[in-house]
Amino acid sequence: MTTANPNTAPTVISNDPWFDSYAHRAESMRASEIRALFAVASRPEVVSLAGGMPYLGRMPFAELSEQLARMLREQGEVAWQYGSAQGDPHLREDVLPIMALEGITDAQPDDVVITNGSQSGLDLITRIMCDPGDVILAEAPNYVGALGVFQSFQVDVVNVTMDADGLIPEAFEEAVQAQRRAGKHVKMLYTVPNFHNPAGVTMSVERRPRILEIARRLHVLIVEDNPYGLLGFDGRTYPALRSMDAQNVVYLSSFSKIIAPGMRVAWMVAPPGIRQKLVLANESAILCPSNMSQMTVTTYLDHFDWQARIEDYRSMYRERRDAMDSALHEYLPTCSWNKPKGGFYTWLKIPKGLDAKAMLPRAITAKVAYVSGTAFYNDGQGADHMRLSFCYPTPERIREGVRRLAGVIDRELDTVSLFDTDEGMDAQQEEQR
Amino acid sequence: MTTANPNTAPTVISNDPWFDSYAHRAESMRASEIRALFAVASRPEVVSLAGGMPYLGRMPFAELSEQLARMLREQGEVAWQYGSAQGDPHLREDVLPIMALEGITDAQPDDVVITNGSQSGLDLITRIMCDPGDVILAEAPNYVGALGVFQSFQVDVVNVTMDADGLIPEAFEEAVQAQRRAGKHVKMLYTVPNFHNPAGVTMSVERRPRILEIARRLHVLIVEDNPYGLLGFDGRTYPALRSMDAQNVVYLSSFSKIIAPGMRVAWMVAPPGIRQKLVLANESAILCPSNMSQMTVTTYLDHFDWQARIEDYRSMYRERRDAMDSALHEYLPTCSWNKPKGGFYTWLKIPKGLDAKAMLPRAITAKVAYVSGTAFYNDGQGADHMRLSFCYPTPERIREGVRRLAGVIDRELDTVSLFDTDEGMDAQQEEQR
Ligand SMILES: Cc1ncc(COP(=O)(O)O)c(C=O)c1O
Ligand SMILES: Cc1ncc(COP(=O)(O)O)c(C=O)c1O
Repeated sequence: MTTANPNTAPTVISNDPWFDSYAHRAESMRASEIRALFAVASRPEVVSLAGGMPYLGRMPFAELSEQLARMLREQGEVAWQYGSAQGDPHLREDVLPIMALEGITDAQPDDVVITNGSQSGLDLITRIMCDPGDVILAEAPNYVGALGVFQSFQVDVVNVTMDADGLIPEAFEEAVQAQRRAGKHVKMLYTVPNFHNPAGVTMSVERRPRILEIARRLHVLIVEDNPYGLLGFDGRTYPALRSMDAQNVVYLSSFSKIIAPGMRVAWMVAPPGIRQKLVLANESAILCPSNMSQMTVTTYLDHFDWQARIEDYRSMYRERRDAMDSALHEYLPTCSWNKPKGGFYTWLKIPKGLDAKAMLPRAITAKVAYVSGTAFYNDGQGADHMRLSFCYPTPERIREGVRRLAGVIDRELDTVSLFDTDEGMDAQQEEQR
Repeated sequence: MTTANPNTAPTVISNDPWFDSYAHRAESMRASEIRALFAVASRPEVVSLAGGMPYLGRMPFAELSEQLARMLREQGEVAWQYGSAQGDPHLREDVLPIMALEGITDAQPDDVVITNGSQSGLDLITRIMCDPGDVILAEAPNYVGALGVFQSFQVDVVNVTMDADGLIPEAFEEAVQAQRRAGKHVKMLYTVPNFHNPAGVTMSVERRPRILEIARRLHVLIVEDNPYGLLGFDGRTYPALRSMDAQNVVYLSSFSKIIAPGMRVAWMVAPPGIRQKLVLANESAILCPSNMSQMTVTTYLDHFDWQARIEDYRSMYRERRDAMDSALHEYLPTCSWNKPKGGFYTWLKIPKGLDAKAMLPRAITAKVAYVSGTAFYNDGQGADHMRLSFCYPTPERIREGVRRLAGVIDRELDTVSLFDTDEGMDAQQEEQR
């Protein structure tokens, strides 16, 4: 409920002559825990279960490079020129059949805005909707990049409880009412309904219309962030919230996980008034998305069997999810976790008494990396969880990573039990008095 | 001195159910005049002297496409993956010799942040420095994209007078003092010292240290926006403000004009405290710049004679500047204008009594487009000027465009003189009473 993140210490540049000149919003900007970890976790000897990088090893780059060379030969002067602030009309047309796979059949190219990754889309929607002190309701735990954006616009993020079926409708309604009673402006509900990052859960189909009904009745905008929706392991897709309500939902999706993130191309669909402001905000932020990146994506979509590629991703990630699940059963049976139906992440609850954040340096020494659950909360919660990504490492590496992690957890448990029978107990008794 | 732009009417979406839900900053977002013009001005029968698009017709795309295909074949998995929030280290190294051409020899790769165009750089520096109501001092007229950013962060832009030698140091000092006496927070001076957009002027070398001295003494950060610095028509470069002061200057440059804008790759150099916040803001805004775009630029820099390419651009744009200048002498001798020493723009003062904004529709009917001077002010000034770009059209087209423009201006003058001897005079006399 606070925008300050007590978990991430700011790295202070000493003697910064500008230190009292910054905007207030800059004070709440902190390096994300994931980012701080990046450097060590990417050493080759470390099995990284930390990052959310898609695996690109099966991408047919030889063939792709031919197509892209042709595109540049034939359309170089367009690809290297400034483009439209709303995005390439060809690409805005190309995203329609992709969204149709999740039931969105009424969107027009003019409803679409191309953004520099969905990260930028989240920045733009927050920028046009939220003044400092406004409230965004969101699942907790929450996508760390969204938390960063909300923080940087000085928004109060209010957690809405979720369970294995996703966001709880009653909790959403209560949270809106409670905030309004407290005199706060609730600007939106931010939700990742499919294969949630980091929680791995999917909002049940039954709950979706109920959440929409509450949002309509209470006049709360829904921001539906859906980069993983097509990566369901049983090949199933879920109806997008946007497919049931064109007026109250801003929908975001991205090519980062279904093609690749290196082009930084994503899109959003919004009702007309909001869409118009998003285009202006996009222009103010970046002038226009990269034509070359967009034309790389349209070349890919037009010349490749992108659906077959997504099929391949699905089966590859399913195999990795299975490797993660069986390794956890084998090596960490005392932990609990969900078995996600899609996406990239397993959300692991670690044994009582352990602190995922505190033990991370020891895990890295043991050559395995993860992200501490604390990264995904803005209020200090989460030390009892960790996020294990199965997207990038091979099944063998996943197994090896979990094995190493189990070793670390076992040693931690030994220390804790030692501590428990020693001063630990005294301290505990002390507290109970 | 106000952030509202009376010149650009907001296009209102009627019945927007969210109209009272937007952030305050969204209220001041307006479609830029340039943008509104884009669609009509880009019809082939119109000679557009409006846009700031570089001419890419001499780019060796056949050769480039080979190099880029090779890059993708060999490094596709990196090019298509997420990258660093600060930008590709290879590219941060590659920009150093480019900056050395303007005397910046002490920058390190770690001082550099890669941004999604300099537009994004302007967004990031404003975001981390400015609260609503803070003051940015700037030349007037001013780059329209910067005005848009400042407006969207609810900053008060205060105009500092400039003359043929650029920003006037005394006017800068007085403006800071006046604002401080009024209790305002002056956060920075924004300046385009070389081949100014739209004014075409260059800050004299003699004034540069004086402006730096004032900024240091009054503790005002200078934001030096320099996309055109290498495009001087006599091959001369000017010492960057940043080359004389590493502590008080944030320097921005871009590949948009010296290579091409379609990759959206630019860079900035900032002192450590600010640089650190810029990286965090970049991450929050876009996660990371596109690896593929950055590697396209490094491939270009590493495999092509980029300095020869810039030489070629210089002589091409000089030829176009000359075509503009001689056409103006021939067809519009009653107007006044500068003869810019570099860059893309001529800033034309039109005859008294004419209104560049009002006559634009008639110009477009006569198949010539320009940008009204009003676009470059935030206070309604500028109707007595227009910006004529000579970057994109060929010399023949420039000539033809100016000829058409002269026809429009002549007809306007006829109407004005008609009006002057008729009710016009009456009205004028009326006013004087
Ligand atoms: C839930 C969620 N939203 C948005 C993003 C941002 O994706 P991108 O900016 O690459 O499109 C991610 C990336 O991991 C994500 O997990
Ligand atoms: C003065 C100035 N600054 C910044 C920019 C933005 O350039 P880009 O975002 O393409 O790097 C421009 C583009 O015209 C400009 O004229």
